[in-house]
Amino acid sequence: MRPYVIVNVAVSADGKISTRERRQVKISGKEDFDRVDEMKAGCDAIMVGIGTVLADDPSLTVKSADRIDERVRNGRPEHPVRIVVDSKGRTPPDAKILHKGPGLRIIAVSDLAPEKNIIILKQHANIIQSGEKTIDLKLLLEKLSETGVSRLMVEGGGTLIWGLLSAGLVDELSMFVGNIIIGGKDAPTLADGIGYISESDFPLLELLSISQIEEGVLIHWKVKKR
Amino acid sequence: MRPYVIVNVAVSADGKISTRERRQVKISGKEDFDRVDEMKAGCDAIMVGIGTVLADDPSLTVKSADRIDERVRNGRPEHPVRIVVDSKGRTPPDAKILHKGPGLRIIAVSDLAPEKNIIILKQHANIIQSGEKTIDLKLLLEKLSETGVSRLMVEGGGTLIWGLLSAGLVDELSMFVGNIIIGGKDAPTLADGIGYISESDFPLLELLSISQIEEGVLIHWKVKKR
Repeated sequence: MRPYVIVNVAVSADGKISTRERRQVKISGKEDFDRVDEMKAGCDAIMVGIGTVLADDPSLTVKSADRIDERVRNGRPEHPVRIVVDSKGRTPPDAKILHKGPGLRIIAVSDLAPEKNIIILKQHANIIQSGEKTIDLKLLLEKLSETGVSRLMVEGGGTLIWGLLSAGLVDELSMFVGNIIIGGKDAPTLADGIGYISESDFPLLELLSISQIEEGVLIHWKVKKR
Repeated sequence: MRPYVIVNVAVSADGKISTRERRQVKISGKEDFDRVDEMKAGCDAIMVGIGTVLADDPSLTVKSADRIDERVRNGRPEHPVRIVVDSKGRTPPDAKILHKGPGLRIIAVSDLAPEKNIIILKQHANIIQSGEKTIDLKLLLEKLSETGVSRLMVEGGGTLIWGLLSAGLVDELSMFVGNIIIGGKDAPTLADGIGYISESDFPLLELLSISQIEEGVLIHWKVKKR
């Protein structure tokens, strides 16, 4: 058993999720921002990789007061559980994700995380140990499922998304393509990591919908089971 | 004066134009192939970078006999002029682009190209010298314009497209997004090179159209003038 996993990303027209310096840039506008907030409010948990925490310091809270109210009326916490995939426990103790808004945080670490980091992070978050060096994502998702996470949104970055995709752990990919070119062979894309070399390994997608949002394109894919 | 420049690429859903080994993979199907052939038949010249020649050995001919006939009826050569951007003159003398089908070929080289390479390539192609180390793309396009090229299609790879985009030399970007994930931080994207770090430098695009083709999405952008 694992949660239903939805990856949500905004990419430039040339497929980049940030500049080569890993600095987050504005790719989408208000309308897409609102769509993502709606998606977030509909999930039990929201996950990012440590690279995204270090580069962007996101809070990952639901922004709309109405959506927060609705969650509470439905007996849910105000915000989804916020999860950082962070093998070495490098999440800064003052990261926004640990402080902004109420609710549960989870830091997923591997055996590589120094005990001193864990002791500090435990003051702000639950710690889930999963994997020896890198995070065992399959095991992590199983553990999250046991704690009641049935719908999980993943916001990046490219290394985490690659890890989930290559382990067959993604159900949907929601992708906003913005009307800019970032460029750069070293700028991150939505699926980094080592990559595939053989066609027979490529994850296949099914096109669910396409639509224009502001000056960009929203493409909604379902990951086919192989 | 320079030609009207249309970049045409097929990318995976994660923005890759090939695997990390630079091996071309099937991203689009027959319908998109036919669309590209139509686009090619409508251009005076078609340009690729040397990396694409070395990796894919394309012939860049028009495939449809009807379209070739129509070109000839209109007093045009059977195939568009085929151009390789190849600063060091590394195009293999047996490359398909030099041998398949009739018509003019142009190899654009810089001052770095060894004379012995140029002597060999001259047997198969016109040589245009443009630039000291890398190719001066603006100058090259001006020279092409003088030889009668008014509509130019660019088929890749990522380094050439980046060079043209960053020099403000692209008018349209036609992008087929296929239903596969290739992955890999080292796999090429449609705009590689050094990349931008500042929002004020990003080329801005205007969305002309979106449509579903087979299991993928065709996005047609116009590059805004800044």
